[in-house]
Amino acid sequence: MNEFEFIKNIKKNFDLRLVGDDCAVLPKDAENDLLMTADMLVEDIDFRLEWTTPQLLGHKALSVSLSDVAAMGGTAAWAMLSLGIPEALWNSKFLDGFYEGWHELATIFELELVGGDISRTSSKFIIDSIVGGNVAKGNAILRSGSVPGDSIYVTGPLGAAAAGLSLLESGARYKAENTDPKAMMMLKQLRPLPQLRLGNRLQEEGLATSMIDLSDGLSSDVAHLCRASNTGAKIFAEEMPFDADLLEFAGSVDAMLELALHGGEDFELLFTANEEKISSSEMNDVFRIGEVTDNPRVIEVVRGGAAELLPAKGYRHF
Amino acid sequence: MNEFEFIKNIKKNFDLRLVGDDCAVLPKDAENDLLMTADMLVEDIDFRLEWTTPQLLGHKALSVSLSDVAAMGGTAAWAMLSLGIPEALWNSKFLDGFYEGWHELATIFELELVGGDISRTSSKFIIDSIVGGNVAKGNAILRSGSVPGDSIYVTGPLGAAAAGLSLLESGARYKAENTDPKAMMMLKQLRPLPQLRLGNRLQEEGLATSMIDLSDGLSSDVAHLCRASNTGAKIFAEEMPFDADLLEFAGSVDAMLELALHGGEDFELLFTANEEKISSSEMNDVFRIGEVTDNPRVIEVVRGGAAELLPAKGYRHF
Repeated sequence: MNEFEFIKNIKKNFDLRLVGDDCAVLPKDAENDLLMTADMLVEDIDFRLEWTTPQLLGHKALSVSLSDVAAMGGTAAWAMLSLGIPEALWNSKFLDGFYEGWHELATIFELELVGGDISRTSSKFIIDSIVGGNVAKGNAILRSGSVPGDSIYVTGPLGAAAAGLSLLESGARYKAENTDPKAMMMLKQLRPLPQLRLGNRLQEEGLATSMIDLSDGLSSDVAHLCRASNTGAKIFAEEMPFDADLLEFAGSVDAMLELALHGGEDFELLFTANEEKISSSEMNDVFRIGEVTDNPRVIEVVRGGAAELLPAKGYRHF
Repeated sequence: MNEFEFIKNIKKNFDLRLVGDDCAVLPKDAENDLLMTADMLVEDIDFRLEWTTPQLLGHKALSVSLSDVAAMGGTAAWAMLSLGIPEALWNSKFLDGFYEGWHELATIFELELVGGDISRTSSKFIIDSIVGGNVAKGNAILRSGSVPGDSIYVTGPLGAAAAGLSLLESGARYKAENTDPKAMMMLKQLRPLPQLRLGNRLQEEGLATSMIDLSDGLSSDVAHLCRASNTGAKIFAEEMPFDADLLEFAGSVDAMLELALHGGEDFELLFTANEEKISSSEMNDVFRIGEVTDNPRVIEVVRGGAAELLPAKGYRHF
């Protein structure tokens, strides 16, 4: 059983109605719903200490949760951090840097750390990043809202974070003084920025019919969205936005597409919307990359006029 | 630096105003505040799989967080679970039992699992248990509200959970078919029950001036409360409630007192209140064990008419 089947099973067994989107949507007050998300990051599974700095890791831990709030069209209100800390890190300056990096991003979004927990681990550093947010009552953008005929958009170029991961895996290291393309790709992997403002604008202007953040990889994430909506999707390979230097890094268009379609952690938003509405809006930083179809759960990629099935090859823990 | 000094430091460095009580208290709507708590439980640090069952562990993971909501006088509204799961447990029936035990307790308090996360770990099982609750606006019972002259109460007998831990450490195992005193002590350690209804009643009837749950151990927990209130405390050893079989297990009154004063995880509530108010209430299940003094941070235990300083010897991760 993979992790998505597992979650589906738990939902069914215990009749859970609020699990499955990027955030849970809970009743708050007359105007707003409460958005809640948690992301567990485990050393040597979700990050490696030798690839990053304490500051970058603190920043990323918050970023991934803010991206979930962005995917619902909300704003972030407060956050908590539960940490499992090995002895060696406790007795170093590591945590000072970690909280510094966390607060650097929190300050931008005027977010206060309100609680959490500290435990000890025998060897690995464990982070559970928890964020609470707000969204106008009944207006959270769910994965289930796409309808055939909608266009599919992303909020930025794809593939660079996966390229950065591949560089790190092959021994390259990010250094703050480097600003060459490879360093920038590693930085995209190590310090993703959540598209909170863009996500919130899409919700406030009533533009997106469904939305998800690109964390596991486009091929998997678009499949999650289509499953929730009972729709299908066509992705136009030639329309996808790429980082300027990605082709040179990848070596071929095929390899570049592979990174953009299946590589995760770009933390851009993928959303569906009526094309005319987007065209007549002032939403300039979005890229139309496909269309929603009435072919439930069939995800295709179109290249050179030919359509092929797009298997979900994004990241899974299990 | 111990973990409490560490948290104090983080609070000061980043000017955090909401950290330090059993839950964060956040604005919700016109009538209620939102209570938020997270508890990270790490295998071989906070629990051992060979001492417990998946069901008991799921139950306890929720229980410790509900106890935090109880300590604020609130009610629980919903919950999330972030899990770090080693491969071996993923490929077993373990998680079915874990979620079963969790839901058994959740059902009692009409609590829905609304989200969380799943990650993988290389070897240990990690739980972050997150609960959201409600409390009447401005009425959360803080640690800071005790005043000299208040009486100190606990909501149940102390020491049995520590006795259970000591039995488990010495090789005894809990079996569901056993109901002897030792099994009951182990069960108190493995399956604590949160005092949610009692905590909520103390708040609704305006009885408690301050409150904390007994998780680390009375000597440490009363010190946290007094630090927050800038008060001191006298604990009357002769007035403390004990489980009926604790004396026989401990072997002496001294050893029994040691368990009750420093052993943690009873998950009873410790609160301060005006003695007359409690006497004239119908609050029968509470035990008066001491008095709040105007001697800031001085915690004493009184036995046979003589007072001695009570060092904080409760559990710390660091």
